[in-house]
Amino acid sequence: MQQNLKVYNSLSSSKEKFDPLNPPYVGMYVCGPTVYSDVHLGNLRSFLSFDVIYRYLEFLGYAVRYVRNITDVGHLENDADEGEDKIAKKAKLENLEPMEVVHKYTQGFHEVARLFNLKRPSIEPSASGHIIEQIDLIQRILDAGFAYEVEGSVYFDVKKYHNKNHYGILSGRVLEDLVSGTRELDRQDEKRSALDFALWKKAAPAHIMRWPSPWSDGFPGWHLECSTMSTKYLGKQFDIHGGGLDLKFPHHECEIAQCVAGYGVSPAKYWMHGNMLTVNGQKMSKSVGNSILPHQLFTGEHPLLDKAYSPMTVRFFMLQTHYRSTLDLSNDALTAAAKGYKKLANGLRIIKQLQYPDNSQQEINQQVDQQINQLCENCYHAMNDDFNTAKTIAHLFNLLKKINSIHNGTMDIGQISSETFTSMKSTFLGFTEQVLGLQEERLMVFDPLLNIVLNSYQEAKERKDYTKVDAIREQLKTQGIVLKDMKTGVDWAYEE
Amino acid sequence: MQQNLKVYNSLSSSKEKFDPLNPPYVGMYVCGPTVYSDVHLGNLRSFLSFDVIYRYLEFLGYAVRYVRNITDVGHLENDADEGEDKIAKKAKLENLEPMEVVHKYTQGFHEVARLFNLKRPSIEPSASGHIIEQIDLIQRILDAGFAYEVEGSVYFDVKKYHNKNHYGILSGRVLEDLVSGTRELDRQDEKRSALDFALWKKAAPAHIMRWPSPWSDGFPGWHLECSTMSTKYLGKQFDIHGGGLDLKFPHHECEIAQCVAGYGVSPAKYWMHGNMLTVNGQKMSKSVGNSILPHQLFTGEHPLLDKAYSPMTVRFFMLQTHYRSTLDLSNDALTAAAKGYKKLANGLRIIKQLQYPDNSQQEINQQVDQQINQLCENCYHAMNDDFNTAKTIAHLFNLLKKINSIHNGTMDIGQISSETFTSMKSTFLGFTEQVLGLQEERLMVFDPLLNIVLNSYQEAKERKDYTKVDAIREQLKTQGIVLKDMKTGVDWAYEE
Repeated sequence: MQQNLKVYNSLSSSKEKFDPLNPPYVGMYVCGPTVYSDVHLGNLRSFLSFDVIYRYLEFLGYAVRYVRNITDVGHLENDADEGEDKIAKKAKLENLEPMEVVHKYTQGFHEVARLFNLKRPSIEPSASGHIIEQIDLIQRILDAGFAYEVEGSVYFDVKKYHNKNHYGILSGRVLEDLVSGTRELDRQDEKRSALDFALWKKAAPAHIMRWPSPWSDGFPGWHLECSTMSTKYLGKQFDIHGGGLDLKFPHHECEIAQCVAGYGVSPAKYWMHGNMLTVNGQKMSKSVGNSILPHQLFTGEHPLLDKAYSPMTVRFFMLQTHYRSTLDLSNDALTAAAKGYKKLANGLRIIKQLQYPDNSQQEINQQVDQQINQLCENCYHAMNDDFNTAKTIAHLFNLLKKINSIHNGTMDIGQISSETFTSMKSTFLGFTEQVLGLQEERLMVFDPLLNIVLNSYQEAKERKDYTKVDAIREQLKTQGIVLKDMKTGVDWAYEE
Repeated sequence: MQQNLKVYNSLSSSKEKFDPLNPPYVGMYVCGPTVYSDVHLGNLRSFLSFDVIYRYLEFLGYAVRYVRNITDVGHLENDADEGEDKIAKKAKLENLEPMEVVHKYTQGFHEVARLFNLKRPSIEPSASGHIIEQIDLIQRILDAGFAYEVEGSVYFDVKKYHNKNHYGILSGRVLEDLVSGTRELDRQDEKRSALDFALWKKAAPAHIMRWPSPWSDGFPGWHLECSTMSTKYLGKQFDIHGGGLDLKFPHHECEIAQCVAGYGVSPAKYWMHGNMLTVNGQKMSKSVGNSILPHQLFTGEHPLLDKAYSPMTVRFFMLQTHYRSTLDLSNDALTAAAKGYKKLANGLRIIKQLQYPDNSQQEINQQVDQQINQLCENCYHAMNDDFNTAKTIAHLFNLLKKINSIHNGTMDIGQISSETFTSMKSTFLGFTEQVLGLQEERLMVFDPLLNIVLNSYQEAKERKDYTKVDAIREQLKTQGIVLKDMKTGVDWAYEE
């Protein structure tokens, strides 16, 4: 099925046959979270899209190295009132430490990723951990003549680059239009043109995160880290570069320019972009008050939410829309997704229990048999069509109808061949669990379930059904739970 | 209670009053895992010891910045048969990438830490992310005259350092003895003395992890990262430096030498070391076959293990021994720990439900009341005595006896004052959950419990007790579970 995969390439604005540079290896770089606040839902959608792309590539048999970075070079400043001397006198521990903020939100992101069943990328490099490599790339760009230094800062010279190359190759922006659209530079500005972007910034005295460099004590420009880390871990040319649509310009455009200027080649063969998430039809924004965090969805604690939605419900909800379409979040849509997800989860339970009979003597119904094989193939076709998870889910529901028919006895399992049954089982399980990453979510109902059991125990005692009483005691004991008859009723404890 | 805390300082080989440099701030640095393989149980014990120290300091009201590093600069080499040219021709993706190994084991460590309820440190810096800072410290040591360069590598000059300072101040090793105990240097050796240690090593062609430096393309010596990162995040002088006993010499001794040589001050006020873990009386070692990994304990899958032990059982087991004593792991000891942990867990459940009556008219029994207050104080005394978790657990069990007496009615709650009850509750919960980090571990018994309920449902149907049948249906429905009467019996599904 590998040879049929098509991906939409933002570089050509069209679907192209997926043809990796060095099969069976695939190198994929995705722009990761900025860890100075909680990851927001729009980011999470983007990470989910590339999670499924990663999963499907591996499902098809590719050996994928998936690099997703952590943007941790931030712009925290010391209290503006304090001069450098004052800060130096303060004990180190009393000062704000950016890496403490970074670590907190990185761990928070990992926790959301775990709940959301995002597969761990192969490498998760951080910008602050690759300053040497970034300084090296700046030097290369300077040596090639596509950057200039002013007062300890280094800027990329967009016009000079565009004279020999194509700035706008990814985003389709036209340099002349961009120039006329930008503000006049004021006299204090260090840049030669408003389009130029920083490769290295000299740090102001209050700026906390800073490193020595040939130009100044400072910090790298934001666009630089991805060019450096993708090259370090995937090579100068690799297969897929992904990110949210909002990163296409200027971030990804600048990445291409940096790589071409410094390494002489355009980095990625396929550029892929995930579309935006809206809430009740509006763009998410803190000022509108419709900015919802992942953990708020999982707890229901947000004014716009009617109730809590489980991580798998949210995952299912997001996958019902193709990654290149906008997705609108609403209570109605999430409630419908909860239903849909549970249908699939019930299907998972059922198909895991279904067994093909050892000696089926029944004649195969060729039509039904063929129909099921077609449904299985449809799943591949949908995913091969630029990872269309929406269509894949629809096909899985069609397959589920057959599974349910077998389970409730309206269809005889012997009507299909053993091979078809195996294919149906592996397709349904493989696409649901491995490719879409949708797992059965166990209910957190220990206390309520145990209470029902304790009620049954009390009632059995009252009607003097001691066989039942003993049976319940015994069954609970094998689970590590002992019952104690108290004056106030029955109590339980962990068996010590 | 802060003023009574005493900690054993390896520098003085005695218990000292804990007197932080800049209260209420406390800076603590602990040597973290090397992420080129799974974290082993001995390491985990050490991390647990410092986890409880971190927890108790915060419990006492200190504002702790806890830094635990990740040692990720490793010594992976490319296939020795391949020349550099051959490697260059290979696609990047086909080559082994050390950071892929690093990321895998870092995530594995985080998973174990999560199961084991280790609190997240404030910062978790990695050696590979601090090369610039390490180069800076090497330069300082060179400038101070305590290091020398040979063929692109830089070595620390131990004898020269010892002439003006004290190499051996922490470990008590005597330099002259160390010298006579070392091998003769062969003529190829770059070091002036066998005691000297590398600050920077020039990388051999096959060495994969390498960075540019003023001396060569190479990598930092192992001792260097901790000196650099503790200084960066906690300052040149901070309160506590911890690690396993095996790190005392040479690692920590060398850290002190580096900091004194490069920054002019000894870094930590208190050096703390956790003792070793043995298995059935023997040192853990891969060659003996008694090396057990944390996840093997949790699954029971190891020839030396009779069964699985839950993370909280293992945590309780380890805390039953003071961190400065050796701890021997055996099935008997773990089985006993499982019992002990469950006793505490039952206590947690009970005390959370206990309420002091609103209008108790009973007279306080002063003796009992005082006794309970004493038991509470004992917990503080034990932890204040160099974090003696073993004694703390013993005191908690004494407190638990009182709690159980109230629960089973042999002691009247009204015998103690409302204040004493509150103190008893907060001490038991605070020390068990917050300080020792022992939580109630919910049993994974969804399916068995549901089966007992389904049995009761079937039996109620058989005896035509439709009130009961409907009640069970209704109760399960509120938990999101629907029952389906099938020909083969009752089946369940998630409510869609």
